Amino acid sequence: MQDALKPYSIRLADWTSGGQEFAIQHLLTVATQPGILSFALGLPAEELFPAAAYARATYQALLEKRQILQYGPPWQPLKKQIVELMALRGVTCREEQVFLTTGAQQGMSLLSRLLLNPGGRVLLEETVYSGIVQATEALRPLLLPVPAHPQTGVDVEAVERMLRTQARPAFLYLMSDGHNPLGVSLSPGTRQRLVALARSFQVPIIEDDVYGLLTYEEVPALPMRALDEEWVLYLGSFSKILAPALRVGWIIAPATLVSLLSSLKEGSDINTATFAQRTIAAYLEQGHFPEHLNALRQEYRLRRDTMLQALEQYFPATAHWSVPAHGLFIWVEFAAHLDMFAVLRAAVEEQRVAFVPGQAFSVGGSHQAAHAMRLNFSRCNPEEIVRGMALLGQVLTR
Amino acid sequence: MQDALKPYSIRLADWTSGGQEFAIQHLLTVATQPGILSFALGLPAEELFPAAAYARATYQALLEKRQILQYGPPWQPLKKQIVELMALRGVTCREEQVFLTTGAQQGMSLLSRLLLNPGGRVLLEETVYSGIVQATEALRPLLLPVPAHPQTGVDVEAVERMLRTQARPAFLYLMSDGHNPLGVSLSPGTRQRLVALARSFQVPIIEDDVYGLLTYEEVPALPMRALDEEWVLYLGSFSKILAPALRVGWIIAPATLVSLLSSLKEGSDINTATFAQRTIAAYLEQGHFPEHLNALRQEYRLRRDTMLQALEQYFPATAHWSVPAHGLFIWVEFAAHLDMFAVLRAAVEEQRVAFVPGQAFSVGGSHQAAHAMRLNFSRCNPEEIVRGMALLGQVLTR
Repeated sequence: MQDALKPYSIRLADWTSGGQEFAIQHLLTVATQPGILSFALGLPAEELFPAAAYARATYQALLEKRQILQYGPPWQPLKKQIVELMALRGVTCREEQVFLTTGAQQGMSLLSRLLLNPGGRVLLEETVYSGIVQATEALRPLLLPVPAHPQTGVDVEAVERMLRTQARPAFLYLMSDGHNPLGVSLSPGTRQRLVALARSFQVPIIEDDVYGLLTYEEVPALPMRALDEEWVLYLGSFSKILAPALRVGWIIAPATLVSLLSSLKEGSDINTATFAQRTIAAYLEQGHFPEHLNALRQEYRLRRDTMLQALEQYFPATAHWSVPAHGLFIWVEFAAHLDMFAVLRAAVEEQRVAFVPGQAFSVGGSHQAAHAMRLNFSRCNPEEIVRGMALLGQVLTR
Repeated sequence: MQDALKPYSIRLADWTSGGQEFAIQHLLTVATQPGILSFALGLPAEELFPAAAYARATYQALLEKRQILQYGPPWQPLKKQIVELMALRGVTCREEQVFLTTGAQQGMSLLSRLLLNPGGRVLLEETVYSGIVQATEALRPLLLPVPAHPQTGVDVEAVERMLRTQARPAFLYLMSDGHNPLGVSLSPGTRQRLVALARSFQVPIIEDDVYGLLTYEEVPALPMRALDEEWVLYLGSFSKILAPALRVGWIIAPATLVSLLSSLKEGSDINTATFAQRTIAAYLEQGHFPEHLNALRQEYRLRRDTMLQALEQYFPATAHWSVPAHGLFIWVEFAAHLDMFAVLRAAVEEQRVAFVPGQAFSVGGSHQAAHAMRLNFSRCNPEEIVRGMALLGQVLTR
């Protein structure tokens, strides 16, 4: 009660006064309530979690070894399993290059603090996953945004121009596959050019590949980490391919950086073998994961295709979109000057359907995203997708 | 292979060049190997983990609700349970003042970023838990160290002098009970004076109370948070009272700060309901926790007393120590100029016993800790304590 009555007087760090509260924050809260058909957040399908297998793995691990609850070093067997997982992704790496994190977001946060001085520079896309902005904001960086296109991805010429004309950034933040929010995957040529730029300007790339294993193509392109093991720092995660609440991800980085990452992680949350690292390892040990990943890819491909069909059927003719080859999102742009916040409000309040307006992913005042929306196709089942898209179409076409 | 051959060329943030590698890092690694009787780290007793009860809670929770594996907001029922736990500690708080963290270390890291500007100031003790230095180092603060005495704790006059003569620090970092590494608990009068200083100089206190519930007294003193709910930001944790690998702790802070903490945590590891938050709540729900906490306190009191007796019996007459009323550590000072690193080397290599030299906890070049050691009494059972202390005594008295 006291808190509400008087203005708070603890002085906070300066970055806190620059925080832009999105108007959609409240709507997003509404959007996750039961009864809302939500295409808003990047949630995996709950019904596909291997809950029973995971329950068995956890139960056995706890009864066999109570040490699983103790402090301990990062769990080495999981690093070995990640090396094998990375091989599926076309990446060759060694156990000593694997650093275990509390999800990919922590990887982003640790790498930012490893590379970025307070007030330093970060090169990123104008339309980008907002987590990278949050991961760096306490260091108050100067953001250097470059355009990105929904069909081709990051504008490589703009990257090169920025690198030539501006003081050196601490890193480039990029996604090769299943870009969040644009849905785009980069061409092999674009990946090669980006890696060449990183080398020649000596600026590392943070490659966020959390959607890389969720591919809907037979032979996906190689991530940038497969092209260069020195200048590409790779982020992976179990959140989308196993379960988010376990909070386990990884960095693939040169082994020389691992002890510094370890010190940073100690300062962040103690770099200890978590329960989750051990139970994920126990689950992977059971051998059903490849099958599980295939089932995910099949089901998500179906949901993607269902949403693409519904876009054709229910959305206005002015809408444009691409077919995502990876990940969980379709980016839809509208030619007309639709106010996406008004559309969202109407969609949630009248039709009980939600999405994220493109503007939520904008950096540096770009207008590219102002008339766009991000749609997630993983959380709702095909029947819900058809129903929700029909309702959303009604709001858009009235 | 490549990594080892060539010097690494990615430019890192400046703080990485200031890192002092402790010479004991290697010995600590050795000290945790099987076969070593270790009084070194702050490990709880593995045999006291409620592993079976926790296994049941986890198994049931997973089978009943697969949502437990999904992204979701911080788990509200756990906040309610923490409010009740805090009442046991003599602290009155409300659910909206509870912020769930990945252990107390993350609380420290988030509060640092919330309060501290890059290059700002931090007031702390000369002999202090090193995690606070690690939590702040990427922000490159100026550390303002004040003396702390093993019998009475932080030097309040020195705190006041520092606040009067120096530019305002972003916060004071303090432990009221079971200080790590000194073992000391502050007198009620000292707590009151510190809170009064925080108010009058408008500098918040971060009160690290991870050992507060491990009390060996009938009526422990109240933590500083019980004296002031505005200027004291409280850190708690399940690591020492339940199990460390679950990585769940909490901050008690004014409700107005919670949304900023939430944004910082989103940037750090996504502020999502972890599996652990829900399974801890399910475990607490079973109702056996108060019993478990009592058993811990009884057993740890016995181990403390066993170690105190062994100190009398086996350590040289020049050694001094106090009786810790809380926590997991005894701090032992030696009058003679013993080289603690040499003692540690001999203890580990010849007798297979380990401790932490006081210097590992020093900030700002203080010599107070140069002839001291920190002994942990929670990990080894009484029989091991007697055996290990006899061996350590041999190294010290030869």
